[in-house]
Amino acid sequence: VKSDNVELLEACKQRIDAAFEFFVKLGVEYYTFHDRDVAPELETIEETNALLDILSDYMLQKQKETGVKLLWGTANLFSHPRYANGAATNPDPLVYAQAAAQVKQAMKVTHKLGGQGYVFWGGREGYASLLNTDLRKELDHMAQFFKMAIQWKHKLGASFQFYIEPKPREPCKHQYDYDAQTVIGFLHTYGLAQDFKLNIEPNHTTLAGHQYDHDIQMAAAFDMLGSIDCNTGDELLGWDTDQFLTDERKATQVMHTLLKMGGFKTGGLNFDCKVRRESTDLEDLFIAHIGSMDTFAKGLLNAAHILSSGRLPKMVEARYAGWNQGFAQSVELGKSSFEELEKVAEKQGQPKQTSGKQELFEMVFNEELVAATRKH
Amino acid sequence: VKSDNVELLEACKQRIDAAFEFFVKLGVEYYTFHDRDVAPELETIEETNALLDILSDYMLQKQKETGVKLLWGTANLFSHPRYANGAATNPDPLVYAQAAAQVKQAMKVTHKLGGQGYVFWGGREGYASLLNTDLRKELDHMAQFFKMAIQWKHKLGASFQFYIEPKPREPCKHQYDYDAQTVIGFLHTYGLAQDFKLNIEPNHTTLAGHQYDHDIQMAAAFDMLGSIDCNTGDELLGWDTDQFLTDERKATQVMHTLLKMGGFKTGGLNFDCKVRRESTDLEDLFIAHIGSMDTFAKGLLNAAHILSSGRLPKMVEARYAGWNQGFAQSVELGKSSFEELEKVAEKQGQPKQTSGKQELFEMVFNEELVAATRKH
Amino acid sequence: VKSDNVELLEACKQRIDAAFEFFVKLGVEYYTFHDRDVAPELETIEETNALLDILSDYMLQKQKETGVKLLWGTANLFSHPRYANGAATNPDPLVYAQAAAQVKQAMKVTHKLGGQGYVFWGGREGYASLLNTDLRKELDHMAQFFKMAIQWKHKLGASFQFYIEPKPREPCKHQYDYDAQTVIGFLHTYGLAQDFKLNIEPNHTTLAGHQYDHDIQMAAAFDMLGSIDCNTGDELLGWDTDQFLTDERKATQVMHTLLKMGGFKTGGLNFDCKVRRESTDLEDLFIAHIGSMDTFAKGLLNAAHILSSGRLPKMVEARYAGWNQGFAQSVELGKSSFEELEKVAEKQGQPKQTSGKQELFEMVFNEELVAATRKH
Amino acid sequence: VKSDNVELLEACKQRIDAAFEFFVKLGVEYYTFHDRDVAPELETIEETNALLDILSDYMLQKQKETGVKLLWGTANLFSHPRYANGAATNPDPLVYAQAAAQVKQAMKVTHKLGGQGYVFWGGREGYASLLNTDLRKELDHMAQFFKMAIQWKHKLGASFQFYIEPKPREPCKHQYDYDAQTVIGFLHTYGLAQDFKLNIEPNHTTLAGHQYDHDIQMAAAFDMLGSIDCNTGDELLGWDTDQFLTDERKATQVMHTLLKMGGFKTGGLNFDCKVRRESTDLEDLFIAHIGSMDTFAKGLLNAAHILSSGRLPKMVEARYAGWNQGFAQSVELGKSSFEELEKVAEKQGQPKQTSGKQELFEMVFNEELVAATRKH
Repeated sequence: VKSDNVELLEACKQRIDAAFEFFVKLGVEYYTFHDRDVAPELETIEETNALLDILSDYMLQKQKETGVKLLWGTANLFSHPRYANGAATNPDPLVYAQAAAQVKQAMKVTHKLGGQGYVFWGGREGYASLLNTDLRKELDHMAQFFKMAIQWKHKLGASFQFYIEPKPREPCKHQYDYDAQTVIGFLHTYGLAQDFKLNIEPNHTTLAGHQYDHDIQMAAAFDMLGSIDCNTGDELLGWDTDQFLTDERKATQVMHTLLKMGGFKTGGLNFDCKVRRESTDLEDLFIAHIGSMDTFAKGLLNAAHILSSGRLPKMVEARYAGWNQGFAQSVELGKSSFEELEKVAEKQGQPKQTSGKQELFEMVFNEELVAATRKH
Repeated sequence: VKSDNVELLEACKQRIDAAFEFFVKLGVEYYTFHDRDVAPELETIEETNALLDILSDYMLQKQKETGVKLLWGTANLFSHPRYANGAATNPDPLVYAQAAAQVKQAMKVTHKLGGQGYVFWGGREGYASLLNTDLRKELDHMAQFFKMAIQWKHKLGASFQFYIEPKPREPCKHQYDYDAQTVIGFLHTYGLAQDFKLNIEPNHTTLAGHQYDHDIQMAAAFDMLGSIDCNTGDELLGWDTDQFLTDERKATQVMHTLLKMGGFKTGGLNFDCKVRRESTDLEDLFIAHIGSMDTFAKGLLNAAHILSSGRLPKMVEARYAGWNQGFAQSVELGKSSFEELEKVAEKQGQPKQTSGKQELFEMVFNEELVAATRKH
Repeated sequence: VKSDNVELLEACKQRIDAAFEFFVKLGVEYYTFHDRDVAPELETIEETNALLDILSDYMLQKQKETGVKLLWGTANLFSHPRYANGAATNPDPLVYAQAAAQVKQAMKVTHKLGGQGYVFWGGREGYASLLNTDLRKELDHMAQFFKMAIQWKHKLGASFQFYIEPKPREPCKHQYDYDAQTVIGFLHTYGLAQDFKLNIEPNHTTLAGHQYDHDIQMAAAFDMLGSIDCNTGDELLGWDTDQFLTDERKATQVMHTLLKMGGFKTGGLNFDCKVRRESTDLEDLFIAHIGSMDTFAKGLLNAAHILSSGRLPKMVEARYAGWNQGFAQSVELGKSSFEELEKVAEKQGQPKQTSGKQELFEMVFNEELVAATRKH
Repeated sequence: VKSDNVELLEACKQRIDAAFEFFVKLGVEYYTFHDRDVAPELETIEETNALLDILSDYMLQKQKETGVKLLWGTANLFSHPRYANGAATNPDPLVYAQAAAQVKQAMKVTHKLGGQGYVFWGGREGYASLLNTDLRKELDHMAQFFKMAIQWKHKLGASFQFYIEPKPREPCKHQYDYDAQTVIGFLHTYGLAQDFKLNIEPNHTTLAGHQYDHDIQMAAAFDMLGSIDCNTGDELLGWDTDQFLTDERKATQVMHTLLKMGGFKTGGLNFDCKVRRESTDLEDLFIAHIGSMDTFAKGLLNAAHILSSGRLPKMVEARYAGWNQGFAQSVELGKSSFEELEKVAEKQGQPKQTSGKQELFEMVFNEELVAATRKH
């Protein structure tokens, strides 16, 4: 770090101090960061890396002092103008190289800080116009980028978990990591499924047109739920509002999925939220965090009640009970055929009509919430 | 077929006659059908199949008489109440068996009729509520269903191409074949990618939140574009309006992608459209078909001009030209690394800002359309 | 009624019997109907009216027997093919005349049955395409239609309240009664505001892009909230799902507005809902109605708690407290001017930043819900 | 202006110089501005006004030198943090007074510059949350604000036309000037309709859920179309992209409405657009403006052809021809009644089914576009 950067260094450290003070005041165990939160980009990569090295040493020291740990780190590959047309999907390979260099350093620093995860959010990995875009080239390049990240992780000896965070659009018109199902499929298409899990942000899920907890459930269904950016959006607004969730129904749905999968193996709940522009008091920052933590805590109690009571889980189980026997088992094991199934169908005749009972499920869900509220 | 079904048989044949008469009057070379278009379901599978056997023999005869050929066939797995909770994803394995029996017969008939393709549209393969749904079980069952379809196709000795037609929702709240990228990923996840291509309906694409030709381009990018249901919707309406396309810009975009991939290998343009409820004259049916055929014909001429003129293709090529050399080639071949790229980045310094030039692309696209219009 | 309609008459009466049996079993005090629910259209207006006269006499008798009363009646001006291009906005004045005749009779019957309200829902009053539409003519004709309805109401000596039910689209691409604010403005534009109130259906509100209770609050703000079709939709689906509401937060918001305005003067909560297509058991109909009635009852208790506790109302009041004094009062009374306000601004200087405290409002709303749940 | 503001003054003048240079290079006759484009806010209103007085004198001089005229002016009531909770709808009357003072000066300056119009865009006139909002108070205050603006205009002796620019949301969750129909209705509700016209931005129209030219046609239908912010958005993105329009179909629709109403009486086409973030070359600014001007010019030629050819206008006219006679005329004149219409309906019997012929309209529209393209 050059001498004329002393002032900058101090300013950065003060911001780090303030952040850790906030974490301690809130009483949280983990934090997350991206490289440009901590240190600005300087003129050369060497300088930029040197600054981040120093500052991450400082962060390590703060971690030790406070006991606050790093949940995950990431690199900001979306703010710098060079990334306007993409980072790992940029038509210019020199920008791609810049992105690689930046991620290399962010991974190194995350490893040093004992981060439990490393996140890729591809806010610029998409297109603004199909007229000027070669979809296949861009997707192939992105896959190669991930492969090199895996290699680098091995060289680092890092054990953190890689996450991809889906988002359908904004800033791009279309982003390739559209939603959970798309990302899971992409990883399989390119042989990357073993090395990644997902970091789900429900505000992105609803922007993709799915229900609040759809991506969380979809990721969990494929054992790919790694971490959660636990915010909310507004289903009727078309942009990422990044609000603090205060709806305990939604918090219950999230916690229900988490408890069913045995809780987080890696990752956690990260508040990727901001207070409203109109919320201008300092205390609003605390009210928002505390209010939303309380909401998720309430959701956890509700979910625990739902699972221990067992009413809803048994109703779901009963719905699929037919698959635990005979020909249905053969289907699941890949040992059946259309001919066999036709014989079953002919023999059994028209199946009796089975109600989906959605209204009953909703009513029982409500009753469980009321019961949980009265219990605690 | 029982004697009391003679009347039914005649009614069905008359509908087939009327359909072929319409095909001939329109001058189309291909048609498509689903099993329940042709023959209703009777009391037992044996009866239902027998009726469809007779009627498909009749269709074969009509094909020979008229020269009209079968583009693809399919089974209607969405209208019968037993499919309300899904066909290949139904919680009840007996419904699953019914669906298997129905597809078995529809595939057989499609093969007999020389169909060039067979379509799966999973209108009921999804959920109405996450509260009562086991996502993973349903997706696994659907994958097994496709595997059995492949086996059956081999037993039939059929050479038709399988297509999956994505749709995000409607009738379900969420359907698993959400869009092209999701389906391609699903096929890779379950090892099915070699046996399927996609049948893209742009009205479904826009319902999924993507631009009109996004799924067509995405499918083509992965060599998975098999056929097109060439309708349009209304970007501002949230349901499947299935309108006839009359916007030549969109037709040009579709034809541009098709020409670039060398035209259809299998499949074709199928009018999955209906005239508006307010269009109550008989002639409206002809006006609509002819108007939209003209639109696609105009789109084809425009696309041919764009490709032969070469202005737009060269602009796209130039944008990615950096990937044809040195380190960028290594990246594409999977032989590079973050360390190597960091060195490139350090050596080359900040890349120069490159404009995406979207407005120029749009203007040139316009100019090409005007030029094509004046040429013909 | 012709002799060959005896069978029809009996069938209609049986449906009426079944409906009233259902009302009694549910224990509801009020019902609603549209003319074609009760009686089909026959060949001539005279016959159609005669049938409805007889059947409404029968309904009157059932009302007396059961004590169940009529909340409101309406005419179905959307199912018959003649209304495809509109009823009161049809380009063909003969269709307009048919609509007038139908509404005349429906109003008469509603009056006879002691209906407390009469609803206009303009499902066909809009356009499918702007290319063939004269917006001004259609809106002027619709306004004239309402004026004649007012005259006819006076001739009938009816005291029921007229309601307009907003809906933005579906079946049309665009409907003129888009939302509450649009309808209120339309009524003022044509001098009709004194004679109408609104029947708000929240599923239509969210389809128009507004939050669940926006139209309810907007209508109440202008003293125009007459009645509520208390269903819900899915903010992420683009069509009218007409679901039973089971989210007590939303029920609380509705009840909060109702309690603040002193409860319904006319109208009430009408379940314009249907069970899901997948809910095929008879009991689902009861579960759905009871579950949603419980939800609104819970919402009422919550809302009563919110108002009696006073925390939230006082926070809102405090926010606008500045308007109860000095120059602000002059503004409200229309006695101020830009010159005066400029002087105030110059004198007072920059106002201090005031937080909107949205997160606090949301947290207190949550706390009030928990408190209400524990109280009851 | 204080001596220490000399530097600021020079910087502002240079920006004005650059802007006028750009106008001249583009060859446009008119420009538009908002106060904070020209001059920043200083510490006191007196200072701020003094700076704007000086700079607007300078603009007047530039206008004379270049011949470029002012289409309309406006005040920026949305960027300053004090307006976070609204300007004319702020809960704090002191903020309201600040807004009044700012508009007072912006109107004065617009008058001095010979502006033909003055625009109100209420980007902060709405709510972020219904929980903390008193809808009626806010709307009443906004109406009073407009009344004071009318008074001040009279005092100024200004003859410019007032415009309100609708936008449904963003930055607020909901804005009161939602769309054309809402604003027209609001103006009638508060007795303001004589003094305002609308400035329609089609990107806002599509954000409100309406077709591109819906608000333009709706405003024109009520003789309220004053000016147009001629940009475009993306129907599938939920935010204001402010793109340059390059779709000549849409440009034709706009020009068609304009020509039918006899062209602008006041106002004009204002490019409220920005080049894409990815369009980073200086020339992109020119390409975008020129490309879009060409698009509108092409649209004008197309529209002129449509009107002179007369095919489409005659088709629309024929559709409503039934209203030019007998009982239909009585309806339009307010002299008919339900009783009279019932007699007509009984006498005429079931009207014959009339097709809306949407597909034909679309096809003819296409043919007219091709014909116009070949003509020029």
